[in-house]
Amino acid sequence: MDKLTELSYALDTFYFLISGALVMWMAAGFAMLEAGLVRSKNTAEILTKNVTLFAIACVMYMLCGYNIMYPADAVNSIWPGMSFLLGEDHTAVDVLKSEGETYYSAMADFFFQVVFVATAMSIVSGAVAERMKLWAFLVFAIVMTGFIYPIQGYWKWGGGFLDEMGFLDFAGSGVVHLCGATAALAAVLLLGARKGKYGTNGEIHPIPGCNMPLATLGMFILWMGWFGFNGGSELKISDIGEANAVAMVFVNTNAAAAGGVISALVTAHLLFGKADLSMTLNGALAGLVAITAEPLTPTPLLATIIGAIAGILVVIAVVSLDKIKIDDPVGAISVHGVVGIWGLLAVCLSNDEASLVTQLTGIACIFGFVFVASLITWFIIKAVMGIRVTEEEEYQGVDFSECGMEAYPEFTGSTSK
Amino acid sequence: MDKLTELSYALDTFYFLISGALVMWMAAGFAMLEAGLVRSKNTAEILTKNVTLFAIACVMYMLCGYNIMYPADAVNSIWPGMSFLLGEDHTAVDVLKSEGETYYSAMADFFFQVVFVATAMSIVSGAVAERMKLWAFLVFAIVMTGFIYPIQGYWKWGGGFLDEMGFLDFAGSGVVHLCGATAALAAVLLLGARKGKYGTNGEIHPIPGCNMPLATLGMFILWMGWFGFNGGSELKISDIGEANAVAMVFVNTNAAAAGGVISALVTAHLLFGKADLSMTLNGALAGLVAITAEPLTPTPLLATIIGAIAGILVVIAVVSLDKIKIDDPVGAISVHGVVGIWGLLAVCLSNDEASLVTQLTGIACIFGFVFVASLITWFIIKAVMGIRVTEEEEYQGVDFSECGMEAYPEFTGSTSK
Amino acid sequence: MDKLTELSYALDTFYFLISGALVMWMAAGFAMLEAGLVRSKNTAEILTKNVTLFAIACVMYMLCGYNIMYPADAVNSIWPGMSFLLGEDHTAVDVLKSEGETYYSAMADFFFQVVFVATAMSIVSGAVAERMKLWAFLVFAIVMTGFIYPIQGYWKWGGGFLDEMGFLDFAGSGVVHLCGATAALAAVLLLGARKGKYGTNGEIHPIPGCNMPLATLGMFILWMGWFGFNGGSELKISDIGEANAVAMVFVNTNAAAAGGVISALVTAHLLFGKADLSMTLNGALAGLVAITAEPLTPTPLLATIIGAIAGILVVIAVVSLDKIKIDDPVGAISVHGVVGIWGLLAVCLSNDEASLVTQLTGIACIFGFVFVASLITWFIIKAVMGIRVTEEEEYQGVDFSECGMEAYPEFTGSTSK
Repeated sequence: MDKLTELSYALDTFYFLISGALVMWMAAGFAMLEAGLVRSKNTAEILTKNVTLFAIACVMYMLCGYNIMYPADAVNSIWPGMSFLLGEDHTAVDVLKSEGETYYSAMADFFFQVVFVATAMSIVSGAVAERMKLWAFLVFAIVMTGFIYPIQGYWKWGGGFLDEMGFLDFAGSGVVHLCGATAALAAVLLLGARKGKYGTNGEIHPIPGCNMPLATLGMFILWMGWFGFNGGSELKISDIGEANAVAMVFVNTNAAAAGGVISALVTAHLLFGKADLSMTLNGALAGLVAITAEPLTPTPLLATIIGAIAGILVVIAVVSLDKIKIDDPVGAISVHGVVGIWGLLAVCLSNDEASLVTQLTGIACIFGFVFVASLITWFIIKAVMGIRVTEEEEYQGVDFSECGMEAYPEFTGSTSK
Repeated sequence: MDKLTELSYALDTFYFLISGALVMWMAAGFAMLEAGLVRSKNTAEILTKNVTLFAIACVMYMLCGYNIMYPADAVNSIWPGMSFLLGEDHTAVDVLKSEGETYYSAMADFFFQVVFVATAMSIVSGAVAERMKLWAFLVFAIVMTGFIYPIQGYWKWGGGFLDEMGFLDFAGSGVVHLCGATAALAAVLLLGARKGKYGTNGEIHPIPGCNMPLATLGMFILWMGWFGFNGGSELKISDIGEANAVAMVFVNTNAAAAGGVISALVTAHLLFGKADLSMTLNGALAGLVAITAEPLTPTPLLATIIGAIAGILVVIAVVSLDKIKIDDPVGAISVHGVVGIWGLLAVCLSNDEASLVTQLTGIACIFGFVFVASLITWFIIKAVMGIRVTEEEEYQGVDFSECGMEAYPEFTGSTSK
Repeated sequence: MDKLTELSYALDTFYFLISGALVMWMAAGFAMLEAGLVRSKNTAEILTKNVTLFAIACVMYMLCGYNIMYPADAVNSIWPGMSFLLGEDHTAVDVLKSEGETYYSAMADFFFQVVFVATAMSIVSGAVAERMKLWAFLVFAIVMTGFIYPIQGYWKWGGGFLDEMGFLDFAGSGVVHLCGATAALAAVLLLGARKGKYGTNGEIHPIPGCNMPLATLGMFILWMGWFGFNGGSELKISDIGEANAVAMVFVNTNAAAAGGVISALVTAHLLFGKADLSMTLNGALAGLVAITAEPLTPTPLLATIIGAIAGILVVIAVVSLDKIKIDDPVGAISVHGVVGIWGLLAVCLSNDEASLVTQLTGIACIFGFVFVASLITWFIIKAVMGIRVTEEEEYQGVDFSECGMEAYPEFTGSTSK
């Protein structure tokens, strides 16, 4: 029997590690998506941000974030405790004694969790693209991944008050996506729109992304990585019921993305008369974000519908945010924020344990806390070092001022601006 | 013992899900390959097609395709039954009662199968690139993924007459690749060549792809995804014999691709005097297609040789199709059709159960049915909405007319055509 | 109990195969990294090299390399035996008789090993980019993957004298990375720098890479693939101790890469005043190379520090090699050679079984043998067919002379050089 428990532990740990590797891969997805959707003159900088924020997330979450989010000793259900560095892994003796309660490696759990943090932070980088100072962004990344994200993560996944009151968020439509989008919104409000985006007479000038295959690749990477994101969040695969659950999560995650693609394409076609590729990509991501809050209980048909509604919502949200001059170059606030909320509400469609009031409460708590905490953080960074590049630097492109290089030195020539 | 059966079920399910995720990843491979091999003015549209066909495949296969291909009640061995939507997953009780016959999640099986459908459809998009109407293509995708593919899939994998007569097709050189290539051939015959491809005096004008690193990336993605495609098609991994079989499939899949690369490179060098990268990429894919019909019984050396012959064949096929003015921008008909047939015949080299006559019969049935069904479908679509863009639109590029955007707005300038 | 052993064998085999697929994926990473860091006129050729070297590695390692590295009958601990072709896989009877010693498929082992060979060879292609003849490179690939790599691999992993004396190299900072970098160094010394790289008055002209998103993608692919590279090198996952070990390897591999990113970014900023993206990418890779020699025994904090030191080292090494006019377009010798040595020495920081003298001996043996063997091989190739393209070809770009095509025919126009 012990040998069986050991093997079961090994399978669950392996499943966690592979899921984590897939989520880590999402970092590449965000980098490619964002690099494809900005102009060439700001590409090297956004790549640098994406690579570095991932590294910062890994270091900060190891140093303190993980222990804040999953504290050994919490102060209360709102304030987690605070401790530093990762401890030891479970010993075989402890595992066998635990009678099934400890069924996978603690280090594998950390690995899976740490790549989630980076996902939340990746959402921010897209929204502030093309005008934020690199180092200001990185300072925010330290605060976000070390403190803001872990605190609200504790509320739900660490056993805090949102978990206690029955707020449901399977893999993080709220904890990860809404959290990231909220921090992004706070930044964009302080930062303002890109020069030339909005005319003085209310007209909106589209600023097309420079590399659509790259953006499409990013979307596909994210779609693939999401199987780890949602699939791994079942946390266990080693018996029939759990294996079925993970399989259902895979099917529904895929179905929602498919629904989002089709509805966003059709919606964009109805609104603009063209099959808009960038809206189609956002549709896929919207479907994925929406199903993340509950990928287990819907039928595949319902998952497709939840994704399809997300695909419509995201097109409307992108257009609407532009109307109120919230300039989000990659649509991150729409995809992860607006649709993240939809996903949290849609839990009520299939999960009997969900309550609309509790879901709304959870949304309000995550949004409120992350918005205020981020705004304060951004304010301080703005006061100390500034958050926006100069007009001249913005015109030239931040690649030159921040990174001292061009992303595509041979393709754009001197006429690209 | 029950716990052991549960763990075994979990491992097989996990293996299925990971294999499926790798096959899903092939959608990105086709998208990148095709986007790299067309001109920049047609890139956004082919990306839109690739993303959307995947979504359509997922929805249609859920709605009816899966039940057509694996019917609960078949009419006879030629006509499957018809039913809708996915059912429930196996209960633990049923699994344990089945004495090993039911050994993985039904949902995991659907997930694995649905990504295969998309693969077949992806093959079509490359061949009709740069001149087909987007919406006509998507309508065909609905018919193909919901009906044409599942019917011939039923013949072999659903237990229909090809399976009964002993036709062998391990992972789909016929069911997937020949099927996709045949639908593509029907489309290309109706659609005609791109403007400017063939001169009035029989000369052939090469139209180079705009982004070879992207095409190379696509090939690598497909190579990687093929480990799921072939490796997962063993359907079981949870004992020594099955684990050895899956390992052999991985080794042979890899070996065949390697053989295809080398022989295509050398063949192209002998024919053209240059180390042609696009032929090398097609050589890798040809090796992969060829080994797909039987990746288990050959030795790794034989697998390499099967792949090497495929690499030679694909170069000859690409050149030959051009001579008879079948314009296939990415070589899809050569790679998946011609080499798919080679793969089905090559089964006889290592599998004693294979009969050349039966393999030829299977090839004829799949080709005949898919060709006729596709031709009729394309005819109807052509009559109702047209399948080809106008000459003006083709000249301008379909990105502008179909998607209203450019894939690389900063790289090509006004001189790009 | 037999069924349990079977299941355990299946899990270990599956873990090996997935790890191998991830390492195979690194081939795409090297291809994208190198294609992004060269100029557009040399891009198709470096892609052709990367695809083909992978294929050659697979064929040569199957034909003889694997049996040289893991010989049934070794001559002595310096010279392995020599035999050809892969044998049979383990039978179930043998596995069950072996009492746990034989616990995974021999074919899965081959698959995992063969993708390592290709990694070593990929390192070379970057360093000799933009001026080496394609076919000369491929001839060297045959010798390297069939003989040079396997011989030194035997010394450590095949049970040869380095293993006997206690040299520690978990996943190949030496056997793979230093080996590849050493062969690259020998090539670069014979080949000389690219025209225009170094001025007559000692000035260094930077030659920027043409596609930084591609290079960044390559780095992310490598980072992801490294989970297979290091994670799979534990060789077993099927009990609690091994599962914990694999999890620790994942965490540390990730931590070291994160450390490398941050330290390289900061170092580059201090040296150049800019957040240099290419140095940041090299920092990530340096962190990964450094932890490869011992990803199991450090704490995550120590792993981060080992990676951070690697990130500093790589920036210094890149700058220093340029000063002594060793022209390495992608920094391969710095990343894999200099940092590979650091990784081998850093084993002593956490593993009590390591001895500095033994590590230095191992480094000297690998470097000495590979350098001499490579130099002789390159010399012979140079004498027989030449290794460098003509000045005219180099000026035009090797894509034209070697591949007869352009990688980006629409993006660069006639002014690109």
